[in-house]
Amino acid sequence: MRVLGIDCGSVRTGYGIIDSDGRRHTIVSAGTIQVPPKESLEKRLMAIAGQLRAVIATFHPEAAAVEEVFHAVNPKSALKLAHVRGVALLVVAEAKLICGEYSPLLIKQCVVGYGRAEKAQVQFMVRSLLGESAPKQADACDALAVAICHATLGTRQSPVGAHL
Amino acid sequence: MRVLGIDCGSVRTGYGIIDSDGRRHTIVSAGTIQVPPKESLEKRLMAIAGQLRAVIATFHPEAAAVEEVFHAVNPKSALKLAHVRGVALLVVAEAKLICGEYSPLLIKQCVVGYGRAEKAQVQFMVRSLLGESAPKQADACDALAVAICHATLGTRQSPVGAHL
Repeated sequence: MRVLGIDCGSVRTGYGIIDSDGRRHTIVSAGTIQVPPKESLEKRLMAIAGQLRAVIATFHPEAAAVEEVFHAVNPKSALKLAHVRGVALLVVAEAKLICGEYSPLLIKQCVVGYGRAEKAQVQFMVRSLLGESAPKQADACDALAVAICHATLGTRQSPVGAHL
Repeated sequence: MRVLGIDCGSVRTGYGIIDSDGRRHTIVSAGTIQVPPKESLEKRLMAIAGQLRAVIATFHPEAAAVEEVFHAVNPKSALKLAHVRGVALLVVAEAKLICGEYSPLLIKQCVVGYGRAEKAQVQFMVRSLLGESAPKQADACDALAVAICHATLGTRQSPVGAHL
């Protein structure tokens, strides 16, 4: 199964595509969609949508996965992120991809084996699982972690928006 | 100027289009995009995007306007709304429309003359300004209020996302 993981952010949105049989994962592509932070929100959303569509058209993933969004940490950041997440979910749905949604805890459990792992541990494990070709950028790495989580859990993903 | 006002909501998204010279406003079309609340979030976003695109393609507005989103009232609702708002901003930007963004206080000031007016007062004034053809649905009325605010303030709108 080819899975696209997306790590939404209003300035940097990471994406990562893997091929996986559920246990072994190979990296196909990964990167960061970077938009100028001073650009207006709608222009940033257009850039993110355009580049996500291009990634899907180029690599033809069969499924997608995103992280859940919570309001607890920083309400203002969560609001910004939810705008981007709405656009990412739209692009994925318009490409007719089923989209899994996972909590940060579940992603860490899947990738590191421990739900409260540090970000650096997740990124270290992503590189361990995918080999030297895994990217160094944090956002791309986080996106690959979401993709690995989806591939590992298979059909057990919760439907997008179930927590909202 | 023909203005499209959008009142974002995850279950009901209102839209209202007016022709305006900045002082007198005529209703062109208004309605509510209703999506089943039990439908998954990405399907709701697709329906909203599709119907907003159809409204723009049919009525060719020259500008658009949306309400600001705040996290204060209900963080969970604000997060849901931000997903829809992200999609609405994307659709508007992809249609190459300039989009104004207004606080609820400013919209009420423009339409009722009093920033802390009740919702019912706003809806009453929208109907007074637009005549009998104004819709009775609250969401369509709220969208028309945003459009009236944009048309009245003219070029004084703040860029979208400025508060984020």
